[in-house]
Amino acid sequence: MIQLLPSWNDGVAKQAIIDFVKRVAKIGSPDFIMPAERIAVFDNDGTLWAEQPFYFQGLFVFDRVRVLASQHPEWKDKQPFKAVLENDMKTLAAAGMQGLIELVVATHAGMTTEEFKRTVKDWLATARHPKFNRPYTDLVFQPMLELLAYLRANDFKTFIVSGGGIEFVRTFSEEVYGIPPEQIIGSSIVTRFEVRDVGPVLVREPKVDFIDDQEGKPVGINKFLGRRPIAVFGNSDGDFQMLEWVTAGTPRFGLIIHHDDAVREFAYDRASAAGKLDRGLDEAPKRGWTVVSMKKDWNRVFPSK
Amino acid sequence: MIQLLPSWNDGVAKQAIIDFVKRVAKIGSPDFIMPAERIAVFDNDGTLWAEQPFYFQGLFVFDRVRVLASQHPEWKDKQPFKAVLENDMKTLAAAGMQGLIELVVATHAGMTTEEFKRTVKDWLATARHPKFNRPYTDLVFQPMLELLAYLRANDFKTFIVSGGGIEFVRTFSEEVYGIPPEQIIGSSIVTRFEVRDVGPVLVREPKVDFIDDQEGKPVGINKFLGRRPIAVFGNSDGDFQMLEWVTAGTPRFGLIIHHDDAVREFAYDRASAAGKLDRGLDEAPKRGWTVVSMKKDWNRVFPSK
Repeated sequence: MIQLLPSWNDGVAKQAIIDFVKRVAKIGSPDFIMPAERIAVFDNDGTLWAEQPFYFQGLFVFDRVRVLASQHPEWKDKQPFKAVLENDMKTLAAAGMQGLIELVVATHAGMTTEEFKRTVKDWLATARHPKFNRPYTDLVFQPMLELLAYLRANDFKTFIVSGGGIEFVRTFSEEVYGIPPEQIIGSSIVTRFEVRDVGPVLVREPKVDFIDDQEGKPVGINKFLGRRPIAVFGNSDGDFQMLEWVTAGTPRFGLIIHHDDAVREFAYDRASAAGKLDRGLDEAPKRGWTVVSMKKDWNRVFPSK
Repeated sequence: MIQLLPSWNDGVAKQAIIDFVKRVAKIGSPDFIMPAERIAVFDNDGTLWAEQPFYFQGLFVFDRVRVLASQHPEWKDKQPFKAVLENDMKTLAAAGMQGLIELVVATHAGMTTEEFKRTVKDWLATARHPKFNRPYTDLVFQPMLELLAYLRANDFKTFIVSGGGIEFVRTFSEEVYGIPPEQIIGSSIVTRFEVRDVGPVLVREPKVDFIDDQEGKPVGINKFLGRRPIAVFGNSDGDFQMLEWVTAGTPRFGLIIHHDDAVREFAYDRASAAGKLDRGLDEAPKRGWTVVSMKKDWNRVFPSK
């Protein structure tokens, strides 16, 4: 007999997943749901891959600032660019989401969508994680890859709903997670259609289009998907509202990954700069959300090299 | 032998469709394209269903203005509402897209997404087309239903890219076209997440989010789909830029439906208020786009009752 979800230890979390899938996918079950309605949404950072010491796209942005600094001499005296160039993580953390957006807009715009895609792919191919010394795309969670496959085998359609950039995630989602670009929802900047000598292109503009985080997640799901998913997987308070919205129906499944494994990955929650989990931990029990302990529930974290 | 596309007469247009599908879907063809990349996009108004005497969503908006007028006594002296209440189509036409957007925002906002969906469904169930005296959802083009099915049978994924409202089209697309809500791209207004006593809801705000028309269509496709389709079907100059963008690659297929059948449907093109086709007709030959004559290429227009 094939073992389901082999990287998951037997326990409450694994059993809850399997029970839910049987409940909605088994013909004759009173809670049977048609395949077209079996939509599962996953946060990306901290849920499908790691997000420490900082969101990987943030690390990409910092690298871009360093590369582009020679064309922007003014950055060495201007925050938050100065903080990046001086590796001043304290000032950067204090600049918060607004500072990060400023960096994203400055480094992710002024090029076509194709040029941006190549830049990201080049970075992913060469950059290495500071702790694990592996490509970032190696730092996906093996138990979650198995979960994605298990859900798809039961006719679920899997979507990513990321606070990160939609075009960033799309560069690797199909290869790494088996999730095609049209099943990615994320934050975006404005693009503009332009006809050039080489043909029509889409140019990325230095203007925020949509922030797919917190209240933005249910909004983004409704905008892109047009119906309410039946299962939702997250790890931080940025996922709280989508967990709340998705699990308001029944039968529904909500799950939060708790990063409590300092040895194999990282341990963080209530006070973290990336992936802060506070309200979600408090409210999960009363809302019926499953909390996964990476330490106890997973017998393996990353795929083997 | 099963006849392909039975409502299409033999001729250049039908042959061009079949040739393209064989070219990209037949294993061993030098232009073979993997199923995941076989994305086809369709305009809705005038391409999948009729759009005269005016866009059907426009007719829905006018009906909503009439219903809501008692709550808005100021509308009887205020344009473009006044023109709707007085059936003054000339003033309405002169108010153009800006006037229409004003009407849409006034009638489509201030309710939850669920309430809006019910309103549309109720209207579609009861309203009748002035010429054909049939429900609007009966006025889909039988040859296009066959084309959608033929493409899907060849592992294409079919999307709608509509200038109309994304939430409007989603209320009937799955039932009528077999296209699920997550494969609809369209114009939208802003929605806001709110937690009420009954649970979390999304509230439609009186603010335009995105206009999915002309230059907006390639932008919308890139935003929602994240990759360039290989086939594109439209009927008006509102589809010009998406035709241009999609067919810039190779192998690619572009097709324009020309409404030249006053007897069975409507005849209109260069000077029409809805579905104006001018530049597309001029440039189709040099761009290699197939032009369909409804009169000559289709032996049937609507499904039988």
